Amino acid sequence: MRFFSDNAARVHPAVLAAIAAADVADTGYDGDGWSRRLDAAFSALFGREAAVLWVSTGTAANALALASLCPPHGGILCHAQAHIQNDEAGAPEFFTHGAKLLLAGGPGAKLTPGCLSAAADAIGPGVHHVQPHAVSITNASEYGQSYTPAEVAAIAGWAQASGLGLHMDGARLANAIAHRGCTPAEITSGVDVLSFGFVKNGGMSAEAIVFFRPDLAAAARIRHKRAGHLLSKGRYLAAQLLAMLEGGLWLETARAANAAAQTLARAAAHRLVCPVEANALFLRVSPAEAAALRAAGFGFYDWMVPGEIRLVCSWDQDADGIARLADALAALP
Amino acid sequence: MRFFSDNAARVHPAVLAAIAAADVADTGYDGDGWSRRLDAAFSALFGREAAVLWVSTGTAANALALASLCPPHGGILCHAQAHIQNDEAGAPEFFTHGAKLLLAGGPGAKLTPGCLSAAADAIGPGVHHVQPHAVSITNASEYGQSYTPAEVAAIAGWAQASGLGLHMDGARLANAIAHRGCTPAEITSGVDVLSFGFVKNGGMSAEAIVFFRPDLAAAARIRHKRAGHLLSKGRYLAAQLLAMLEGGLWLETARAANAAAQTLARAAAHRLVCPVEANALFLRVSPAEAAALRAAGFGFYDWMVPGEIRLVCSWDQDADGIARLADALAALP
Amino acid sequence: MRFFSDNAARVHPAVLAAIAAADVADTGYDGDGWSRRLDAAFSALFGREAAVLWVSTGTAANALALASLCPPHGGILCHAQAHIQNDEAGAPEFFTHGAKLLLAGGPGAKLTPGCLSAAADAIGPGVHHVQPHAVSITNASEYGQSYTPAEVAAIAGWAQASGLGLHMDGARLANAIAHRGCTPAEITSGVDVLSFGFVKNGGMSAEAIVFFRPDLAAAARIRHKRAGHLLSKGRYLAAQLLAMLEGGLWLETARAANAAAQTLARAAAHRLVCPVEANALFLRVSPAEAAALRAAGFGFYDWMVPGEIRLVCSWDQDADGIARLADALAALP
Amino acid sequence: MRFFSDNAARVHPAVLAAIAAADVADTGYDGDGWSRRLDAAFSALFGREAAVLWVSTGTAANALALASLCPPHGGILCHAQAHIQNDEAGAPEFFTHGAKLLLAGGPGAKLTPGCLSAAADAIGPGVHHVQPHAVSITNASEYGQSYTPAEVAAIAGWAQASGLGLHMDGARLANAIAHRGCTPAEITSGVDVLSFGFVKNGGMSAEAIVFFRPDLAAAARIRHKRAGHLLSKGRYLAAQLLAMLEGGLWLETARAANAAAQTLARAAAHRLVCPVEANALFLRVSPAEAAALRAAGFGFYDWMVPGEIRLVCSWDQDADGIARLADALAALP
Repeated sequence: MRFFSDNAARVHPAVLAAIAAADVADTGYDGDGWSRRLDAAFSALFGREAAVLWVSTGTAANALALASLCPPHGGILCHAQAHIQNDEAGAPEFFTHGAKLLLAGGPGAKLTPGCLSAAADAIGPGVHHVQPHAVSITNASEYGQSYTPAEVAAIAGWAQASGLGLHMDGARLANAIAHRGCTPAEITSGVDVLSFGFVKNGGMSAEAIVFFRPDLAAAARIRHKRAGHLLSKGRYLAAQLLAMLEGGLWLETARAANAAAQTLARAAAHRLVCPVEANALFLRVSPAEAAALRAAGFGFYDWMVPGEIRLVCSWDQDADGIARLADALAALP
Repeated sequence: MRFFSDNAARVHPAVLAAIAAADVADTGYDGDGWSRRLDAAFSALFGREAAVLWVSTGTAANALALASLCPPHGGILCHAQAHIQNDEAGAPEFFTHGAKLLLAGGPGAKLTPGCLSAAADAIGPGVHHVQPHAVSITNASEYGQSYTPAEVAAIAGWAQASGLGLHMDGARLANAIAHRGCTPAEITSGVDVLSFGFVKNGGMSAEAIVFFRPDLAAAARIRHKRAGHLLSKGRYLAAQLLAMLEGGLWLETARAANAAAQTLARAAAHRLVCPVEANALFLRVSPAEAAALRAAGFGFYDWMVPGEIRLVCSWDQDADGIARLADALAALP
Repeated sequence: MRFFSDNAARVHPAVLAAIAAADVADTGYDGDGWSRRLDAAFSALFGREAAVLWVSTGTAANALALASLCPPHGGILCHAQAHIQNDEAGAPEFFTHGAKLLLAGGPGAKLTPGCLSAAADAIGPGVHHVQPHAVSITNASEYGQSYTPAEVAAIAGWAQASGLGLHMDGARLANAIAHRGCTPAEITSGVDVLSFGFVKNGGMSAEAIVFFRPDLAAAARIRHKRAGHLLSKGRYLAAQLLAMLEGGLWLETARAANAAAQTLARAAAHRLVCPVEANALFLRVSPAEAAALRAAGFGFYDWMVPGEIRLVCSWDQDADGIARLADALAALP
Repeated sequence: MRFFSDNAARVHPAVLAAIAAADVADTGYDGDGWSRRLDAAFSALFGREAAVLWVSTGTAANALALASLCPPHGGILCHAQAHIQNDEAGAPEFFTHGAKLLLAGGPGAKLTPGCLSAAADAIGPGVHHVQPHAVSITNASEYGQSYTPAEVAAIAGWAQASGLGLHMDGARLANAIAHRGCTPAEITSGVDVLSFGFVKNGGMSAEAIVFFRPDLAAAARIRHKRAGHLLSKGRYLAAQLLAMLEGGLWLETARAANAAAQTLARAAAHRLVCPVEANALFLRVSPAEAAALRAAGFGFYDWMVPGEIRLVCSWDQDADGIARLADALAALP
């Protein structure tokens, strides 16, 4: 029973069906009928004008978004535990041509205006020090915490007052929205560019980069091609995104994953590192206990903090497996 | 009837079936069972040890391959009409961090040792001039010409004697092999890194980078991730490649496309710019004639050379459409 | 007798004196009293507002200027024989993070609006092709030809109409001005950024980057530091530039070099490849003749065109050496 | 009385004299007689084979050195307070094409094998995380602390065992050597590339990059040119370095600066943050006390740690100014 990550789960049948339905000749790259519907579909979802590019990975989505907001000589304020800092092989540095990630702290891998101010104020003025040009937050965070709309708005206000762009890494934004019960518009207010994840949530190979400042999209389309991310048969990617939006499928799958995580959270309440606000849970577990769980057939990763493990639930998580893991966790002393 | 390009054709049913068959949870990225079979499958095809990465586009395949062979301060000898020079938005410069394409001439967008020597000899020694580190050839070429095994071997010999790596852009290598009737091994002898195209030939979103110097693959895997090209559900890409290799499907589809092109070539023999050695033909056609063909329902691009048009046949080209276009071309005076 | 290049000539005594005079403690980097006078001094020379950075080499001046005008994904139209293309080790690609030099032709290594249009029109629209963002011209050109004010203005008009920035590589601008007998303002009308050379003309280690669009200077100052070009004792560079401007020294030294070249040109009129419009001359000379000249003690380089040699006169060229070389050239049949 | 930094002090008369003595025409770039003596001069100083490049700034020296040791996709372990991390405008990222600085801790801005292990061990294996390729240490450190030969050797041993290159930022290495009373060879044992500073120590515009692995120098010479750091009149830089080495001038000037700092240290012993091991001292001083010192005519910077100030002594520090400041510091309660 796999609780390693949601990133390798199966593809939702509706997505596979959409791929099959897109199997007709059409214009190459992003000139096809599916790709051309994306701007409208996402604008409708977010209630404001958006320009959207499909891309095959969250890493590329994040890096292209950041390159839209920060010049090569600039800096990006982010959390020290951010995925862009630790897990993307330097992709932000590659796509931005060497911009610097400027690290801030904050519990639960979440930032606040206070954390950001502290980090920014430590940087002297002038040409000798890399100056911040953008802020990047992850929602839900790397610790499975979700920002509320008010928290996002506060950061957006700080960023705007500081003259910085705002990027949201939304690899699991669907889970955050499902948890918060808010609208997509509410939780992205003030965001300039959003990496909106679908692969972890039932997609196969399509994420969306959503530019809420559509003026940023023109140069981003060039970088998209230049980075080898403009697939010639783009309709098979666009169709995935449209299928996920259709009838709110993205929210349905996120709710399923979150529900599984909550089931586990209730069983392991005595071991939770932090509240479960998306589809991942972090537990305090000794090495011996972790070994016992693995021996019982449960697969998961140790977290970067010694003594903690991470369990992630997917949209298609097997109910029986959840129940068995819940029992095992509840049995921990 | 579309003869614009083979790059947006439909996906072969066997590829779609393979994607569906891969729809089970497995290890993420390239740790799954499909991805792990690639090295062996391609090593068998080429009769020598190869390390293989899947990648979503030919542009990324070429750029990652070139970055494996050339440092940021080096140069890459290629044809002035090469796709990497003209049609990839500077992806080689991006992935190599600013290496320089050093242009050579030669008929049919093909290079020879003589053309390469002329270009290389014009570059003085020393640190003031960008020195070549690699050669890149396209087979079949941008003019639809295919290199023979002997021609490739001659270039490989020259490159080796000059201390340069050799890259082959094989976006349409299958068509070249089908035309030449040789083996994959014969036509890639001496090549260090091959971009092996499958998308134009029936695939959906998977090309292969084939490292015949497996020592180059380790750093390439890092760049692959760093460029956002390491999909988390990589099995859906690997499965496409395996499906194309299975039973020689790649050769079958290439032959179908070539046969269509030959049918047209016979009809338009009096207008051919050069012999048809793959699945594309280039014709001398006046603007009025081109307009008439388009008015009759045939879609195609003008070529970069004024007075020439390019017609490309896909693996699934409709037989009726071919026959009608052949009639229309034969009717040209 | 050295006619290799003006780039390693002695330093003018007034420059050495200015360096000695700057040998007092002052604020570091470019906060000293000398550096802070540069904007005003060059604004006065050019008759319009300018922001000026000192830099140690012409290569850095050119590359920083180009990076101010062209994003990493853009292109720079220049002559195929341009110094930035052939002799700067890819510095433009390094500083711009991989922008592409887009080559145009034209006699005497000079460009015209017609040449530029031809090159630009060959580039298709859209994200697949690197689009030009700037034009770079060299005055005096690599062939020792100088643009007239009208020729510069015509190119500036074309660039502006095309939405492109204009850079002038003025490594030998002083020689061009001395030859044309025009003002610095006239010959740079419409130029956005100028690399103004002083090292070849009597300086030691200071060139000027002159931003006629002062808004471009802020980011350039960051790149300047980031590239390791912000010396901590900048006053010794600023003092060199001020010394060269003082009393029109720069024009005096350029006139001396040009006069020497004209003396040689008169003697070698029957062998000139093109008219001498600065301080260099290009001659048609057989290998045997070149060898004989060298055997007689004259040092010079073969030019990149077989059968041609290049002779460059410095500001301090020895009168006796000039006379002897003139005699030797006149004696050629 | 200026105690801001040693970086803008006057130039030693012997250096100015050497510049004047180099004012004869010679081969351009680094082909002159002075530049060609550098390898031997530094090899003699360090007692082992070294290849040496002159460069105009410490920032360029560091960045070129790091680019020699780390590929674009790699990381460089350094102290969180390192100059390369905080004060060089992202030059390391620029020259390495986006390598990542991986931060470690340690008192006095010094690293130890233990600090390095802790930082390295926190990085997981595999392509998702930037892997270290090099270590960079600063001697004397940003806190004016100097590594002993044994400390350097311990780090070198750790780096070698970890397969990492070792860079030493020796902007004030002369001061460290003067303090430790060791030989240049002893304090650089195991170092692969050294940035050896001369500008702060009496030079004008020349630092040395010393490659103790001469095989690294060939590519570095290309990057040196490509970064616009290959001056055409390089003899004026080489002559500075040779003048500083001549008769051990570099050690004499460093001792003078250190002695001045020790005088101040004795006077301010009750306020020292850490022992004075070079030519800088860090003091605990309240804002009111700092203001009073400034009002008395002493110039200095606040340190990045609130409540601390930094005072730096130059090689030519005025004896009267030192005495007066010593009195003022001694008078602090």
